[in-house]
Amino acid sequence: MERPRHQGMAKNTYMRWRLPLVCLLWEVAMIVLFGVFVRFGPEADAHWEEEKKELNLTSDMENDFYFRYPSFQDVHVMIFVGFGFLMTFLKRYGFGAVGFNFLLAAFGIQWALLMQGWFHSFKNGKILIGVENLINADFCVGSVCIAFGAILGKTSPIQILVMTLFQVTLFSVNEYILLNLLHVKDAGGSMTIHTFGAYFGLTVTRILYRPNLEQSKDKQGSVYHSDLFAMIGTLYLWMYWPSFNSAISEHGDAQHRSAINTYCSLAACVLTTMAFSSMLQKKGKLDMVHIQNATLAGGVAVGTSAEMMLTPYGSLIVGSISGIVSTMGYVYFTPFLESRLHIQDTCGIHNLHAMPGLIGGIVGAITAAAATEDVYGKEGFIKAFDFTGEYHTRTPSVQGGFQAAGIVVSLLMAFVGGAIVGGILKLPIWGDAAAENCFEDEVYWEVPEDEESDAYHMHNPDKPASP
Amino acid sequence: MERPRHQGMAKNTYMRWRLPLVCLLWEVAMIVLFGVFVRFGPEADAHWEEEKKELNLTSDMENDFYFRYPSFQDVHVMIFVGFGFLMTFLKRYGFGAVGFNFLLAAFGIQWALLMQGWFHSFKNGKILIGVENLINADFCVGSVCIAFGAILGKTSPIQILVMTLFQVTLFSVNEYILLNLLHVKDAGGSMTIHTFGAYFGLTVTRILYRPNLEQSKDKQGSVYHSDLFAMIGTLYLWMYWPSFNSAISEHGDAQHRSAINTYCSLAACVLTTMAFSSMLQKKGKLDMVHIQNATLAGGVAVGTSAEMMLTPYGSLIVGSISGIVSTMGYVYFTPFLESRLHIQDTCGIHNLHAMPGLIGGIVGAITAAAATEDVYGKEGFIKAFDFTGEYHTRTPSVQGGFQAAGIVVSLLMAFVGGAIVGGILKLPIWGDAAAENCFEDEVYWEVPEDEESDAYHMHNPDKPASP
Amino acid sequence: MERPRHQGMAKNTYMRWRLPLVCLLWEVAMIVLFGVFVRFGPEADAHWEEEKKELNLTSDMENDFYFRYPSFQDVHVMIFVGFGFLMTFLKRYGFGAVGFNFLLAAFGIQWALLMQGWFHSFKNGKILIGVENLINADFCVGSVCIAFGAILGKTSPIQILVMTLFQVTLFSVNEYILLNLLHVKDAGGSMTIHTFGAYFGLTVTRILYRPNLEQSKDKQGSVYHSDLFAMIGTLYLWMYWPSFNSAISEHGDAQHRSAINTYCSLAACVLTTMAFSSMLQKKGKLDMVHIQNATLAGGVAVGTSAEMMLTPYGSLIVGSISGIVSTMGYVYFTPFLESRLHIQDTCGIHNLHAMPGLIGGIVGAITAAAATEDVYGKEGFIKAFDFTGEYHTRTPSVQGGFQAAGIVVSLLMAFVGGAIVGGILKLPIWGDAAAENCFEDEVYWEVPEDEESDAYHMHNPDKPASP
Repeated sequence: MERPRHQGMAKNTYMRWRLPLVCLLWEVAMIVLFGVFVRFGPEADAHWEEEKKELNLTSDMENDFYFRYPSFQDVHVMIFVGFGFLMTFLKRYGFGAVGFNFLLAAFGIQWALLMQGWFHSFKNGKILIGVENLINADFCVGSVCIAFGAILGKTSPIQILVMTLFQVTLFSVNEYILLNLLHVKDAGGSMTIHTFGAYFGLTVTRILYRPNLEQSKDKQGSVYHSDLFAMIGTLYLWMYWPSFNSAISEHGDAQHRSAINTYCSLAACVLTTMAFSSMLQKKGKLDMVHIQNATLAGGVAVGTSAEMMLTPYGSLIVGSISGIVSTMGYVYFTPFLESRLHIQDTCGIHNLHAMPGLIGGIVGAITAAAATEDVYGKEGFIKAFDFTGEYHTRTPSVQGGFQAAGIVVSLLMAFVGGAIVGGILKLPIWGDAAAENCFEDEVYWEVPEDEESDAYHMHNPDKPASP
Repeated sequence: MERPRHQGMAKNTYMRWRLPLVCLLWEVAMIVLFGVFVRFGPEADAHWEEEKKELNLTSDMENDFYFRYPSFQDVHVMIFVGFGFLMTFLKRYGFGAVGFNFLLAAFGIQWALLMQGWFHSFKNGKILIGVENLINADFCVGSVCIAFGAILGKTSPIQILVMTLFQVTLFSVNEYILLNLLHVKDAGGSMTIHTFGAYFGLTVTRILYRPNLEQSKDKQGSVYHSDLFAMIGTLYLWMYWPSFNSAISEHGDAQHRSAINTYCSLAACVLTTMAFSSMLQKKGKLDMVHIQNATLAGGVAVGTSAEMMLTPYGSLIVGSISGIVSTMGYVYFTPFLESRLHIQDTCGIHNLHAMPGLIGGIVGAITAAAATEDVYGKEGFIKAFDFTGEYHTRTPSVQGGFQAAGIVVSLLMAFVGGAIVGGILKLPIWGDAAAENCFEDEVYWEVPEDEESDAYHMHNPDKPASP
Repeated sequence: MERPRHQGMAKNTYMRWRLPLVCLLWEVAMIVLFGVFVRFGPEADAHWEEEKKELNLTSDMENDFYFRYPSFQDVHVMIFVGFGFLMTFLKRYGFGAVGFNFLLAAFGIQWALLMQGWFHSFKNGKILIGVENLINADFCVGSVCIAFGAILGKTSPIQILVMTLFQVTLFSVNEYILLNLLHVKDAGGSMTIHTFGAYFGLTVTRILYRPNLEQSKDKQGSVYHSDLFAMIGTLYLWMYWPSFNSAISEHGDAQHRSAINTYCSLAACVLTTMAFSSMLQKKGKLDMVHIQNATLAGGVAVGTSAEMMLTPYGSLIVGSISGIVSTMGYVYFTPFLESRLHIQDTCGIHNLHAMPGLIGGIVGAITAAAATEDVYGKEGFIKAFDFTGEYHTRTPSVQGGFQAAGIVVSLLMAFVGGAIVGGILKLPIWGDAAAENCFEDEVYWEVPEDEESDAYHMHNPDKPASP
């Protein structure tokens, strides 16, 4: 009986000193780095009155705040309520889903402001921030929320924070390579956010493979009300996705167009998801897992091309296909990934983000390659792809090639980065729970005593689990 | 024992081929029609750079996107989260409430973009869409969500989709008659959305009358947490209603005014609802059904007049009255409608949308008839009622008459259309459930096994129900 | 056995005539007062076309509606969903939390429009309202929502309405003293909303001290799902707080800056809250009470200084400190306040609003005192502190002194006002429940019969309670 106990001890989930230490050290580091580097951008600085005169701006409305703040708030809701509640579907992991998502995102946006700032907003030794930086920080953290979906319920808060630290860093590097070196377009982040985030998370969960996870199988499902909580997340992601894909597009027609394309794609996606959810089951009943997730694939799959002239019917086609692929993923691929490839993907991010992200990257490459001056107009063409400066000679087909290269780079970064970070997270010092205590809030949270909880009582880690 | 079984067989709720077929055929039709007809409007098209120069616009801010997108997102939330969660109050129909609302709305907005597009945005053989079209599509679908409230829990997803198809079509025709032929004002849709939608739904549910519905009476109520979920819907509808009523008003003062009038009306409505909810019960306790629904009647009842100079105190009066009427409706009219007129109105849409919608139409007619150049200013008067072109000689009192005619037309369209569509939905091919299985998610959804579910176990359709 | 029965009778919670009377009288009063006083402001009036010409405005975008409406809607969500759901954490008081919050806020905004209107928007005998007035009314009511948190579960709806009536009045007077007489800056209301609201509520709950409250101790906790409902409130407050603090700031850079400062402060606050929540417990587990509340302290604590040049790192520091103070408050101060000072603070508003509010006032005073023309620019400096007219000679250090005086005035108003209002609420005519029936929806609400409810059955007021 000694061995299982030792195993129990190896799984020391006591957070009292480790978690505070990580959080506080981190916050001190942030304060120091922000103190050294971060300042208000010109549109948020009190000197803007002078700036306005210099730029000959006649109205306060020209402040970027008014172009982007409503979209920022929608994106903000997607990250905190959307992803947070989407993951509350598990019957006894609601606190962890919402709470750890809250923690990782609050942790990540600070680091993202710095990392992305150094790459994109660095002037005279200072990072100058404005509302666009806030949106980009949320985007970056979005990729971590995606990866979190793969390891949900199986990791300690410290592991989540460590993953956030590294993933934000790698995200920013990958984003810099794509946007600045390859000069790729990716407004809604099919490649930078979804493809990278999902394959990163899948690699991490592969490395962290738990052979005995069936010991907590009874807690891996939902209950009636937890499925309704999850629908709050789904609907906010679905409704605000047009804001997500258009949030950092160029002012004017590009933002307008991104929102419309995304709206169309998402509407189509709901119908094909419902169709395949019913069709792929013997009983023909709809499955909430599909409705909660695959209905969103349409937003992912137009992430790159939304600001291009994809056209409304093009969006319907992309949305339809992604809903089908995603739903089939839940039915066929997820079990396959788990049994054959040992990839335990709690939320099925492979179906919601990885495959639709790839579709998005490919659609973006094709749409870019097919662009013509006729469709975009002479000026619109240059503006849409930013074919200025050193890129003024780039042709659509070359652009399409670079877009495709962006997919490959994102995948490579995800696999290599995920493997390294997964290895770090495998160290036995981070306080993750034993297999039989996965998907259980009682490990890291004070859980109120209510009648229901009896039914899902945590397994005592000192009691040896049956083999 | 054969007969009840046959009845059970007639009630074949198996969706596996029917639902996918409808969804997929529909989506293919949408793709083809969008391909033929739908293109980006000038403000969402990449040619906008050229357009801007032609129109002498100096700022990207002049793009309609920035005038309307925040309101659009609020309306979007109302349709999907507002209506979706408002209907989760039933103890075992939360999946159906949120899920089928999601399905019908995603289905309907695509068709609405086409139908409304042909009537209002058709140029040189193409429908040119922008953010205002998205809002109008949501509005149109809103009227279907309302009708859905009457038949909630008693229909199959296919019936819901068939109803959506026809209702969107009829809505668009009715809207065209009102707005274009009668030249009626109806910014928040008291007539086009609420009166039409509610009486349409009530007629449909009358035709679909189920004499044995008391067999599922035990499932027609709420449980504690389902009432809280419903309050999410209520509050989002209540908070964003000012955006709903102002979303497509003229830029500037009209949008501003619509929001203020609606805000005032809704605030007053809450107080009179609370008062009458307590007063009309012997025990004097508040009833969540009233709080969830009647508090919203104030938004419906200023739908037509919100953009007019109704004035804040006028809004308070309208809101107060509608809260009283709506609450009294729940206490007195709903039981009467069910027992005498055989109208089974699950959510009480007669109280929340039908009567307040009529009030809204009448208030709009009176407010229009009472308009003077003194109150609106010379230019404001013409702008508010669009008394230009062929309507430049129309007087306020004539306008009031046309407004009243709009109510009558909407009612006629609702009754006739509802009767026809109800007849179609009565065909025994759509897979609706037997009376004893109404208000029960297990018929069309995979429902997780939890302790609670035992208590609400579905009646076996093969077992004969007691007569 | 007679005495306890009499006590039961003294606690007559029958609302049937009292609550309707208060609501209806109030609404009639509002209609009359609005009729006499309230009109549309120039930007919401149909005469705006003429106004535009006079002011030489070339675009409808210059209407304040477009500068502030998105922020208004975010604030609106905070008041109704944010505060409403935050307080649903109690296992059997969800209806009261959401419903009474809804009632008091709808009641309060009407009175606030009048009170604040008389002080700030009164011209030629009329109160002229626009979107900024709607925001200010929500702000004012926010201070009542805060105070409601202290008395949650222990008061009748009538007591809540009476408190709202008086508190809105006192709030407006205090706000007038601070903003107009002391010429203090307080964009996000650290002093006017949080400090005043919280100490007012704490004084009221002190006066209403219930010595036997432990009789309902079993209902003062949460259950698993009620904690998730509360997280909806938390997240909406957290996400939209940048809108709250920037909603009425000057157009342009000031709004932009307020949002960024608040965003930074809140992000830091989450990390220190998580750290201390884990650290202050023997078991090292996270406590949902802290996560639900203390994570928001960062928004409160930058309420005054958000629109100043606090800088992002300054915001991180303020947010970090306030998270620590607030979490420690829940662990150490709340029990102390209850046992020693007889302050029964249901939601812990002392930790979330009172202390962080004081921090916010102090940080504001310091930030103002430290302002220089170098940091703000010559024009920005004057604009930021409105050093014009009679205040054109005021220096930063003097401004800092006045800011500090604002804290003192707010505290005095809260203590004196709270004591008087608490005394009024102590009268035995308002229908509050007996101690053993506190935190129980069945007293004032029709509660659906479900299995769960058996466990939390209301104590029969006719049965004598054990002493």
